[in-house]
Amino acid sequence: MGESLTESRTETTLPAPGRQRYGAPRQAAGTPEGRGTIGTQRDGRPAPAEGHEAAMLLERARAEVDPVLRAALGSLPGPMRRIALYHFGWEQADGTAAEGSSGKAVRPALVLAAAAAGGSEARAGATRAAAAVELVHTSTLLHEDALDRATTRRHRPTAWTVFGDADAVLAGDALQALALRLLAQDPHPAAPAAAARLADCVVELCAGQHAYTAMQRRAPAEVTLDEVLVMAEARTGALLGGACAIGGLYAGASQAEVAALDAFGREAGLAFQLIDDVIGIWGDPHCADEPAGADPAAREKSLPVVAAFASGHPAATELAELCARPGGTGDPEHIALAVERAGGRDWAQGQAADRMARAMQQLARAVPDPEAAGGLLDLAELVTRRAG
Amino acid sequence: MGESLTESRTETTLPAPGRQRYGAPRQAAGTPEGRGTIGTQRDGRPAPAEGHEAAMLLERARAEVDPVLRAALGSLPGPMRRIALYHFGWEQADGTAAEGSSGKAVRPALVLAAAAAGGSEARAGATRAAAAVELVHTSTLLHEDALDRATTRRHRPTAWTVFGDADAVLAGDALQALALRLLAQDPHPAAPAAAARLADCVVELCAGQHAYTAMQRRAPAEVTLDEVLVMAEARTGALLGGACAIGGLYAGASQAEVAALDAFGREAGLAFQLIDDVIGIWGDPHCADEPAGADPAAREKSLPVVAAFASGHPAATELAELCARPGGTGDPEHIALAVERAGGRDWAQGQAADRMARAMQQLARAVPDPEAAGGLLDLAELVTRRAG
Repeated sequence: MGESLTESRTETTLPAPGRQRYGAPRQAAGTPEGRGTIGTQRDGRPAPAEGHEAAMLLERARAEVDPVLRAALGSLPGPMRRIALYHFGWEQADGTAAEGSSGKAVRPALVLAAAAAGGSEARAGATRAAAAVELVHTSTLLHEDALDRATTRRHRPTAWTVFGDADAVLAGDALQALALRLLAQDPHPAAPAAAARLADCVVELCAGQHAYTAMQRRAPAEVTLDEVLVMAEARTGALLGGACAIGGLYAGASQAEVAALDAFGREAGLAFQLIDDVIGIWGDPHCADEPAGADPAAREKSLPVVAAFASGHPAATELAELCARPGGTGDPEHIALAVERAGGRDWAQGQAADRMARAMQQLARAVPDPEAAGGLLDLAELVTRRAG
Repeated sequence: MGESLTESRTETTLPAPGRQRYGAPRQAAGTPEGRGTIGTQRDGRPAPAEGHEAAMLLERARAEVDPVLRAALGSLPGPMRRIALYHFGWEQADGTAAEGSSGKAVRPALVLAAAAAGGSEARAGATRAAAAVELVHTSTLLHEDALDRATTRRHRPTAWTVFGDADAVLAGDALQALALRLLAQDPHPAAPAAAARLADCVVELCAGQHAYTAMQRRAPAEVTLDEVLVMAEARTGALLGGACAIGGLYAGASQAEVAALDAFGREAGLAFQLIDDVIGIWGDPHCADEPAGADPAAREKSLPVVAAFASGHPAATELAELCARPGGTGDPEHIALAVERAGGRDWAQGQAADRMARAMQQLARAVPDPEAAGGLLDLAELVTRRAG
């Protein structure tokens, strides 16, 4: 599925620098206009290794947003601060400094990349909004870990296992409040609209998490593909879309452009989720970090598995038997094989490609200038790279 | 303790109507200036039964804020909406309409009364903010009930007992988001400052709830009075103060006036908490709704009990023995007697009077015009009435 994205990237060309990106006359991405392809760097040097630009965007976003996040967390009362700093990977449970990772900063990078499509000034004005989106993301992770009884996050014990359920929930509440306070105190004219959209994302994330939890109580064969797609969009797509839309708001994008940015983030998010599910079952060819089938229970309602059940293929019956085995979810390898034979893997990869294509269409609508869209394309590429 | 409030109310006099209330030249409450005392109604009719005006303010606030709240809840996705409507007392668990009470609306009434001190236009502009404060309050109740394992709220099973922990937490998250969305979408120039202050309240409420939970794990004698006062201010005072401050913001009050309104709400809130604790242990002379000593476990770290422990009175030793009895918290009546003999009841009532006096001082600083302060005085009177 990586091909469609790679193609669209090598076909797109750069416009003259410095032009207004949002609100520009519509043209299809890929219209020849300028100085070179995005496959080369903007100064004409050969393109770096695939994913390198995205990694740099993430690193830069992390560097810009972290001081805002640290200041925000620093304003919390002691016990809430301690939990938040632990959850961010910045402190050990005993309060000593940690060198842990606080995550990839995909969402802040999307906010900044979407804002950057409106120029470097728009990007600089969106740092606080990028931090706010990350705070909401972190807040939902704190709550989800506690509600799902997840024991590990980023190779460390989850906050609720260290500080207890109640304090993890309270710290999550405080982080949500910090996020919306950052925007309330942001003098940028886009801040109120961004705050409203971020609040909408929280509500959709809650609905998605509810749907996820409710699904865990049902047999895999009872869950429809539509339901899982809606759930995945709410749990994963909503905030990725929200991040892009908020970046667009800070760049002065029109309502239609903001909607297209939202759709871009949602579609790319669903593609990411599909690929993440594939990796969860069959492993990542690029990375030995997470073993294949590491968490079969969590994967039981994943998109490829539900697709396999819905396929009507004889292997689906075999799959149902494997999943219904008393005392467990069956052997992960056998399940993976049955899902593959029932077409779950192919379906997921095809869907991911389809979603990425739709994401590209939405991006071309929102930011027709391919140079301006470069950062968002780079970040979307993370997905295709994982897809292998 | 009711005396100090009543005195200050009968001594204060009304100014000429229609003048600018906030930002007016400072004068002590009670300076003779006008047409009559607050002990009479504003049209000169005799004052109604004590508490009647406050009841009318609450009822009016409820009537004005409920449509905004219902519209906000109506925007939630199905499952979140159902939990929220149940928690508000507006629906049964099965989704049929309920005639249940959604609470006294003290906080919205405080927002509106503080705004009304700036004139009726300012009051009318603050409805959305009043609803936002109530949403935050309701959100924290949802979470607190789940975290404290409380089984009853307003004579009904708590939401988490009906819908489960996870969904109750998620619905609380969604309500917090709705609150801040209401303010983000409010075009009033005070909305951003109000949103920031409301977010600060959430953080303080979380810290207060954390302190409360942590205290439950300690022996009563180990808890200091200062700790319990700080905890009670965060849990009860913060949002009552925030409600008054937000109302002031909508009335265009100065920073100093907003600070004084915040202090008024906090002091009145602490007075309320002290009296609530007294009623929890010894019963309400005005109301048979809640039996005395109804929940001795919850009252064990209440203000009168901790004060009794700190008294050094011989009865404190007896109290420690009663509380340390294996398998329970001892007989409520014996504990109540020991707390009283150790001076816990007198201390709490004295503190409550002291806090109310401070509240009145702050109110006079914020709103020197006694007519303009009338609504806030009426609401504070609820406290003295309960004190008997």
